[in-house]
Formats: sequence, structure tokens, C-alpha cells
Amino acid sequence: MKIMVLSACLQAMLVTSVIADEGMWLFNSLPESQLKDKHKFDVDEEWTKHLMMSSVRFNSGGSASFISSNGLVLTNHHVASDTLYKLSTPERNINSDGYYAKTEADELKAPDLELNQLVSIEDVTEQVNASVKAGVVASDAAKARRAAIAGIEQQSKEKTGLRSDVVTLYGGGRYHLYCYKQYTDVRLVWAPEAATAFFGGDADNFEYPRFCLDVTIFRVYENDKPAKIENFLAVNANGGKDGDLVFVSGNPGRTQRILTPDALTYQRDYRMPRTLDLLRRKENLMQQYALGGAEQARRGQDELFGIQNSRKAYMGMLAGLQDPAFMANKRTLEKKMQEKAGNTEAWKMIAEVQLERMKLLNREGTLRSHLYAIAEDLVLMAAEDKKPSAERLREFGDAGRESFEQELFSPAPLYDDLERVMLADELSRFMEKRGGDDELVQKVLGGRGPRELAAILVEGTTLFEVDARKKLAASGLDGIAASKDPLIQLARTLEPEYRALRERTEELDERERQAYSKITDVKFQLEGESTYPDATFTLRLAFGLVKGYKEDGADVPAQTTMGGAFEHEKQHASKDPWLLPKSWHDAKTSITSTTPLNFVCTADIIGGNSGSPIVDRSGKLVGVIFDGNIQSLTADFYHSEDQGRAVGVHIAAVLEALEKVYGAGELKMQIGK
Amino acid sequence: MKIMVLSACLQAMLVTSVIADEGMWLFNSLPESQLKDKHKFDVDEEWTKHLMMSSVRFNSGGSASFISSNGLVLTNHHVASDTLYKLSTPERNINSDGYYAKTEADELKAPDLELNQLVSIEDVTEQVNASVKAGVVASDAAKARRAAIAGIEQQSKEKTGLRSDVVTLYGGGRYHLYCYKQYTDVRLVWAPEAATAFFGGDADNFEYPRFCLDVTIFRVYENDKPAKIENFLAVNANGGKDGDLVFVSGNPGRTQRILTPDALTYQRDYRMPRTLDLLRRKENLMQQYALGGAEQARRGQDELFGIQNSRKAYMGMLAGLQDPAFMANKRTLEKKMQEKAGNTEAWKMIAEVQLERMKLLNREGTLRSHLYAIAEDLVLMAAEDKKPSAERLREFGDAGRESFEQELFSPAPLYDDLERVMLADELSRFMEKRGGDDELVQKVLGGRGPRELAAILVEGTTLFEVDARKKLAASGLDGIAASKDPLIQLARTLEPEYRALRERTEELDERERQAYSKITDVKFQLEGESTYPDATFTLRLAFGLVKGYKEDGADVPAQTTMGGAFEHEKQHASKDPWLLPKSWHDAKTSITSTTPLNFVCTADIIGGNSGSPIVDRSGKLVGVIFDGNIQSLTADFYHSEDQGRAVGVHIAAVLEALEKVYGAGELKMQIGK
Repeated sequence: MKIMVLSACLQAMLVTSVIADEGMWLFNSLPESQLKDKHKFDVDEEWTKHLMMSSVRFNSGGSASFISSNGLVLTNHHVASDTLYKLSTPERNINSDGYYAKTEADELKAPDLELNQLVSIEDVTEQVNASVKAGVVASDAAKARRAAIAGIEQQSKEKTGLRSDVVTLYGGGRYHLYCYKQYTDVRLVWAPEAATAFFGGDADNFEYPRFCLDVTIFRVYENDKPAKIENFLAVNANGGKDGDLVFVSGNPGRTQRILTPDALTYQRDYRMPRTLDLLRRKENLMQQYALGGAEQARRGQDELFGIQNSRKAYMGMLAGLQDPAFMANKRTLEKKMQEKAGNTEAWKMIAEVQLERMKLLNREGTLRSHLYAIAEDLVLMAAEDKKPSAERLREFGDAGRESFEQELFSPAPLYDDLERVMLADELSRFMEKRGGDDELVQKVLGGRGPRELAAILVEGTTLFEVDARKKLAASGLDGIAASKDPLIQLARTLEPEYRALRERTEELDERERQAYSKITDVKFQLEGESTYPDATFTLRLAFGLVKGYKEDGADVPAQTTMGGAFEHEKQHASKDPWLLPKSWHDAKTSITSTTPLNFVCTADIIGGNSGSPIVDRSGKLVGVIFDGNIQSLTADFYHSEDQGRAVGVHIAAVLEALEKVYGAGELKMQIGK
Repeated sequence: MKIMVLSACLQAMLVTSVIADEGMWLFNSLPESQLKDKHKFDVDEEWTKHLMMSSVRFNSGGSASFISSNGLVLTNHHVASDTLYKLSTPERNINSDGYYAKTEADELKAPDLELNQLVSIEDVTEQVNASVKAGVVASDAAKARRAAIAGIEQQSKEKTGLRSDVVTLYGGGRYHLYCYKQYTDVRLVWAPEAATAFFGGDADNFEYPRFCLDVTIFRVYENDKPAKIENFLAVNANGGKDGDLVFVSGNPGRTQRILTPDALTYQRDYRMPRTLDLLRRKENLMQQYALGGAEQARRGQDELFGIQNSRKAYMGMLAGLQDPAFMANKRTLEKKMQEKAGNTEAWKMIAEVQLERMKLLNREGTLRSHLYAIAEDLVLMAAEDKKPSAERLREFGDAGRESFEQELFSPAPLYDDLERVMLADELSRFMEKRGGDDELVQKVLGGRGPRELAAILVEGTTLFEVDARKKLAASGLDGIAASKDPLIQLARTLEPEYRALRERTEELDERERQAYSKITDVKFQLEGESTYPDATFTLRLAFGLVKGYKEDGADVPAQTTMGGAFEHEKQHASKDPWLLPKSWHDAKTSITSTTPLNFVCTADIIGGNSGSPIVDRSGKLVGVIFDGNIQSLTADFYHSEDQGRAVGVHIAAVLEALEKVYGAGELKMQIGK
């Protein structure tokens, strides 16, 4: 029974943690001896460098890989869906119906996509820490650290021309400088229908066995020509077999394994329940919006999917935290570390920070709407740009300005009815959180109810137009102050509270960084330096075996097949979301039904890894990560491979579908070459 | 635009409140002069008594009427749905597919339905208040008042043999004794398909124009024979025309119009946002459960409908409260009343009570699951039965024991998978609310996570079986204490906290009653005694005109037609939930398309009024209330007839459908006779 899983998992973790294929490893610090001892695999510098440079990060939140010399990029449909959605119109729903560009001229340019290729990593811990003088208060320390980081990034960017990000690792224990080649001309080549990419919908999400062709292919361009790519992955369509060692190279978004029991308690009792309330609220809002008609359903589709995906993931995470055995184990580990440290200072500081965070839970200085985010960015930017780059809020620094403006000035469509619904809900939520008699709430509402005000804001704003945004951006602080745009005025009203909350949060973050830095030292003393840091949406290497598992006493096989997809459809009476698209039915007889479609492995992944290439010992592509099973959802806090698995699309299915289902044999021929 | 409605409504309310058809009037205190002056209607004692005795209350939460001398009862499908659901099986989904008993032998007995017919009303205010000595603390006052009420009820029941309920009116300003004839043998005669009863589903709910045949017909039995009914309604199939005066006789569940601004602020900023979070959580839970398959969807159908209905209603209520103009108006009224009172004492007491209520928000001593409710009842009952009836918690008193046991020992089906899902969520919520380290939480979980514990509880309990419940009930306090049933043990663990919270809440209620009693006196001084009290799920008379309204500049007509239902289906591409059932399509050509289907009037109603008969001047039945439009959702706090409307099913459509669609001409012939 699935419900018994957590504690069982946990016990497995406690017993087997020494030999588990755990870890999201830094490319500059791979677990060489572990790989050699357990898997007889020799880490080779060339192999590593090639895999690193073949890996691609979707700045919008996902992973991918180069799969041809002429710029083809393979990722998940659900990583691409943000772009597919933005490229869709009421007449052409690419997100649902798929797309295939038969010629280069048909390839569709994404309005605001940025891809990153990691080129180098450098440890800058000493430089960063040197900027923070001993004994200064946390708010000053946070500013000094921010300035040092901005300086390093700016210097690097000037020197290399590359995107340069200083990454905080081990919660503050280390700082590494990551340099990326940026690709901002990204075009859609092929996407299948949502009905196969997300076959089984919300119901099958995070379940296994699965039958999803959750992939999409883009191409990167330079100077209006397909980019020439030196490092790309060759293909092994016969790989990914039961028992095979595989590697996953991608960008896991966030884990919280370093968290102390007090920090976990805050997550369990305060942060996560509130996040889930918010997600369910937004899910309901988008469901209700979609009832308005087919076009509303289309407009809200991507947003709703994202919310449902997060909701299901958070439910799994909270269930993990609510397992008393997990917390008891964490307390035991804490005690061991405190003994090694000889004091409890760092842990006390973290406990104090949690209490401070609780006080902020009901304050709010922003509204979650696409339109409001634009207004807020413009208002903040006008003030930030008066300061030197190093003193600005991070996203306004010179080093990241290009990426920032690509998003701010994106021509991606915005819909007035959707924005109105979102703003009305956010204003209502703002009122609920702070209380209706709160001074700032009264100031914001100006005597009107949330729905009435939302209608006025959407009707009166000019921010739907990219030109209007550019004009406002160019008008500077005076222009913003003089703007009659009601959304700009609203963002100005909220600006002081937004800044106060952000400053307070950054101060608390700094206090935590200092504490976790000390805890990391203890961790290194206990475990040696060959430990991996929590995920930070930067490139990591995970590894594991292709391997089925037992559930309810039955064997769950490692692979599913394309023929199995038709079986799965039949078992659910071909009822939406278990209805394969017409293209699959048309091609049914020509598809080799035994072609592997999805498969699982024990590699340690989490959200952000979506789209990560899965490669074999020789570095050849055998599949693409697209999910974790429901038993893996505790990965935020601990890795377990008793039943927890990463789920991937097999590359054989991609090739088979391109040729037999989508008439894209020509595209298929380019892959791996 | 709908979003502009609230403030517009409010202004209309402020201007027109003198002449509006506002009020849910007591049958023993009707607004005679208002009816005479405005509508030239003379209230006649016989007319009133006949209507009162023809009206029926569904104890499960709804209204109805007697419509024949042989016991036929007309209500809404959605009032009946709780019973339809309980009568359904995996093989026969009555809730979805409808039912028609061609003969009396086919009529299906409801497992636990109790209908009430109001027979008499008596003012017992002095008796109740005399029991509360001046100067005693609120907790003692609450106990004394509860004992006095229980005594009056018990005495009345012994004297009359009737169900006897003392009703608290005006928030504590008056106490009336209501005596009811009970009907506990209630059988299903006819129900249409959910596809017509709830045509348009959650999307159309609370919208107008509407096209729903939201009705169901039961029959009451006595001594295994159809009951002979003296007071039943005659029918006027040509009534309910534009401009007609109509009356609604039903049981509005709850309004909160007496609430002071401080009490409303508590509702707006604390109570309602939390209620909505809870509703969205449960909606999501039931949606996810329904994804398990067709049978799961059936099992969860009624629960999900109820949750969605509440969620939409609460959204409307909160929007009303969040309109700053409403609260400002309430403050003005408060000032006026305080001036009249010459002091602010009562208002201060209510403000204090709200602060106390806030402190209870994160405490919890119960779990929301059908199975747990049974366990809790058994545990409480065992202890309560050791006390004299007057000292027990209200529901365990002798006067109401029959109704109570009918529910506790109901053979209605319970589903283990559904109970497991519900309990897991409730245990998780219990943990979230109180915090995972809370002593009671730890005691409840006993080292297991919520999902694991829920599985153990459902697997180990005997409470699915009615006989097991009866045995436990008979075993008394010792039997309960010795029970090994894990749910009984859990309810015993929670019992002290449940009792502490309930006692504290009843004490706060008493303090509010005392305060509102004083405020009511001031209200009477200002407005005379011809004011109506807030709704209390007891019989009230509302009245108003059949009347369309303007929306977005367009006229919304007072009536829709059966032909319009087919049009509405077409406009939504016949896509579920806008797909009429096969029976309607089969009968399409024989249906008179101009037959009125739904219609609106200005009468003042709210949840609980569902199923209320709508009668004309002569007391003849013209329709059945089934909804309010979205603009009426603020009715909890104020009545508005600018756009706010009650929505009813026209009796002509019921007769037409019975004959033409459902082949139930014989049943039709009995109606009104």
C-alpha cells in the first residue's frame, strides 16, 4: 500500500544510506571513489567536460541537452510549455496540438527564452567572505556580501563576455562562480500533442508506470543561423536497460537537506501548509476561470498545469515532513553534529531566524499577477538604477541586465480577463493577510472592493504594450513618479513595504548563511569534503541504476513501452486525460509496440531536473528525465531508493515517434550528428 | 460588468432599504402593514396557518412542501441528493441517473431522513431568561440557559408528543418554542437526472438565466401507508408571471445581519478566509479522489457538490464583506444605535468575544470524517448519558434522541477508501493546525504519519457496521473505555480537548447572546417590534415580486423556458456539464418549448431555503426555490434587490416534464389533489 511507503522508505534510508546512489554532485567535485568502488566507473576529465558542455539550462526553470551539431536542443514538453503557450493563439494552440517545423523557415522564435551552457566553475568563497567584516550586524553583512558578489559577477562578465553568476552552496558554506554562454535566439522545431506529452494528466502525474512522450525539440540560433555546437550528445537507442548504470546531468532546483530540525519544523508547521493553501486557492481560481469557455481554458492551461504540479509535489514533501520518524532521525543527526561542533550556537541562530520568519508570514508587499510583476519591476528599477550596480537589488545589477530585460520587454501575450481575475484574487488575499483595516490595505483599495479595483487597474493600465513598458523604463525615476498608470501607482504604493520585507528577509537569509556555513564545516569534518551541497538550480551530476521496484508486493518493471500506452488508454476507457492523440492512433500499426517509452532509475533528482539528459557510461544519450515517482517526492529532504525513482522518456521512443507518428524522419536524421 | 455589482448593490440598498421586500419573517409576527401598504395584500390567519402547515423542513438541511393529500413532498434534487447518494450503489447511480417509482411498492425508503412539519410557535423568552441569574459568569449562565431550554423542550415533548425545539432569535433577544410533527418514513418517488437538475454544473451554479429542473418528489409514510395530509398546496401552473406578488415559505439556514462591525471584521479577516481555505482544500481532496475512477467519482459526487456549492457561496459572502462601503455603512448604523442605547457596553462585549475567538482558531479537537463523527458521538454519548437530560450537551438530550439515533445508526453506505483519504487529510490538518510537536498531536499519531495512521484506523475499526455501533452504544461508559476499536480510542484521546473547546465556545456564545439581546432591545426601540430576526433554519415567510433585472446594460428576463434549455446546451456545444440527458432529447419534439422552466423574484432567501415552495396570493404553488443569483450572495449580511434575486423552478416545468419527459403522468395527476 502506497500509504505505508513513507516510513518504510525512511527506514530503508537509515539502513542503506551508505551505499545509496545519493547525491547531486558538483561537476568540479565528483564522487570519484564512490563511482569507482561501487560501479567500477572511472571519472574521466574529457567525459565530464563533454557532458557538462552538452548540458543546457532553461532559464525559465528546467534542463536540456544539445543533441546535434546544428543546434538542436532536447527538453521536456512541460519545460517547453511556457514557450508553447506564449507562441499559441486562439486559432493555433501549439501547447495542446503540437508543432512540427518542416523547414528552418518554419521554426518559431520563442519570445523570451534564454538558454545557458555552463562553461566554467571557480571557487570564490574567500573573496566573498572577505567582504563581510567580523562583528557587523546581519543587515550590513548581507549588503556587503551582495556587493562583493555583484562585483565578482560584473568583473567576470567584463572579462569573459559570459553570463556570470556567483552561486551560494551548502547554505552559505561555499561560493562558486559559474560562467555561462547564453543563447537568446531559441526556436521551436517540434513538439508533440499535450495528450501524449501529458498522457494521464494530473491523475498520472508523479505516478509510475507512465506512458508519456514528454519531450520537445528547440534549435538555438546565432546571427540568425543555426548555432554550430561543438559539444553535443551522441545517441544510444539500445541503452537504458534494466541494471545499467546511468548519469543525469541537469539543474535540480532546490533541496533542503541541510535544514536543521528547527528549520524543518518551521517548514512543516508554517511555511508548507501556507504554500499549499495558496496553491489550492490558485488551482481553484484557474479551474473556475477555465469554466468560462474553451478560449479561457487555453489561456489558463499552462498556469493551471504548473499549479497542479506544484500542489502534488508539495503534498508529497509535507507528507515526508509529517512522518515523525523522519524528524526523530534529524534530531539524532543534529545531536551528533552538535557534539562534534562542541557547541549549539549555529543551531540556535537558525532557530531564532525561524521565529523571526513567523512574524513575517502575514505581511505582504507584492501581488502575484503577470501585469503587476511588470509594474513592480519598472518601479523598483527606476530607483535601483540610481545606484551603482553593486549596491542594487540583485536582479537589477548590470551583470544580469540582459536576461532581466528580455523578460520585462517580452512580447508574450497577456490577457485582460485573466489578469483581472488574478488581480482581484490577489487584492482579496492581500486584504485577508493584512486585515481589512490595515492602513496599507485601505490605501491600496481607496474605498473600493478587490474586484472593482482589479477591473479599474486592468482597464486603465498601458502595460499590456511592450512599447509602453520601454517608454516607462526610459523615463526614469521622475517619469515613474509622474506616471498616471494605475498599476504603476499601485506598485509605488506598495514599494516601501516590498523593500522593507525584502530587506528583512535578506537579513534573515544572511544570518542563516552564517549559521549554515558553520554547520557545513562540521559536516565536512564528519563526512569529509566529498559531500554534495543542496540543489541550487545549477548543473549537477547524479547517477544510479535503471531498476524497477516492488509496490504492494508486485514488481513494477523498469521500462514501459509504446504499445503499453495503448493498453493504458484502454484500461481507462479512453477517457480524457487517458486519450492518446489522433496521430498515435493513425500510426498504431506501424509503431513497434515493444519500443521502450518511459523508464526509471535510482538517480537523485528533483524539480528543475526536468529535461535533463540521461546518459550511459560512454556519455551517450539514452533518455530524458521528466518526473519522479510519488515515492521520490520527499527528495527535498532526503533521497531514498527503496521505491523512490527518477522517471525518464527513452530516446528510442523519441526517434520512433518522430519517424512513425510525426512524419519527422528528416529531423530524426539530424539527432546525434 | 458583474465585478461592479457589489458597490452598486450596496448603494441601491442604502437608498431603497425602506421600500425593499426585505425580510425573513416569523410566521407568528408577519409584516402585515407592509404587505397591505405596498402590495395590497391582507394577511389572513387561515391562509397563514395553511401555508405554514403545508411547509416541510428537511432535517438534513433544506425545505419542501406537501403537494398532495397522499403524502407527496416536493423539494430540490440538490436537497434530496444526500439521500439519492445513500440509495445509490455501484450498479445503480440514482443521484446521476434519476429514478421513478411507478408503483408504491417501488418507492425507496430513505435510510435516515427526517422531515418536520411546523405545528405551533410559542414565546418562551421570559422562562429562558429567568433561569439565568444576574451576575453569574458566562460559563455558568450558558449551562443554566441550556438546562432551562432542555427542560422546556422535554416538557413540551412529553405533553404534545411533538419534536420540540427552543429557537434562539435575534442572536439572543428572544426564545421561541417550535413544535413539529416528525416524519421518519420517507420514500423516494421520482428524481430526474443530475444532468437536468444541475444543468451547467459548478459553472452555472448561482448564475442566471438558468435552466435547471432541480426538483425531486418524496412521499411520507405512517404505519407503512402513505400519510394522509390535511394541509397541502394546490397548484397554479399559470402563476409566477412577471410582476406577480409571490411568497416563499421555507427554512433559511443562517444570516448574520445583526452582527456588529467588530464581529463582521472577525468574519472578514479571520473566520471566512479560513473557511475558504478549508473548502478549497476539501474540494481539491475530493477532486483528486474522483480521479481514481468512475466508482470513486460516484462515491465522492455528493460531497464534492456540497463543497463546491459552499465555496462559491462563501466567495460571494467574503466579497460582500470586503467592500469597504459596506463596512463603513455598518459603522454608521452602529453609531446611531449606540447613541440610542446611551452606551457602548454591548458592542464592547462583542468586540472582546471576537478577540477570544481568535485565540481558538488554531485549536482543534475533532476530525471531519463520517467515520470519526460516529466514533465521537459514541464516546460523548456514553459520558453524557450518565447525566440528567437537562445537563447534557444539547444533541444528547432526551427530546432530540430519536432524530440523533436515526442518524447515528443509519445504514447509509460508508466507503473505506474514501474514509481513509478523508482521515489522512484530517490528521494532516490537525497536525498543521496545532503544530507537529504539540503534545496532543504526538499522542494521536503515536509515532506514525497521518497516512499510515489513517490506514490503520480504517482497517481496524468496526464502525462501518450498524450493529457494532449499536453494541458499543449499549455498552455504556465502561464498554467504550474498554473498546479496542482504534477510532473509539482516538475519539477518547481527543475527547477532553473537544469538550474544552466546546465549553469555551458555548461560553463565548452566551456572552454574545447577552450582548445581542441588549442590541435587539435598541433595534426594537429604533425600528419597532416589526423587525425580523436573523435566519435560524426555522420556518420563515419571505415575499417579493417576480421581476427581471439589468446586467451589463442588458435586460435579464424574469423567466426562462424549457426550449431555452436546449438553446443553452447548444451555446455550450453540448459539452459536459451543458449536456441535457437522453430523456430530454428523446422528448424534445413533444415538449412545449415555451413552458416556463426557471424564474426569479425579489424575495429575501438564503441557503436552507432550497426547496421552499413559492406560492401566489391565493396560496397556490407556482414554483420551488433552488438558488440565488450571484448578486444575492451577500444576503448573509444584507438584502439587495437591485440585481439580487431568488431563483426558482416553475411548477409548470415540473408538470410538463413528468408527463412528457419521464412518462410519469400518473404521478402528475396526484399533485395538488
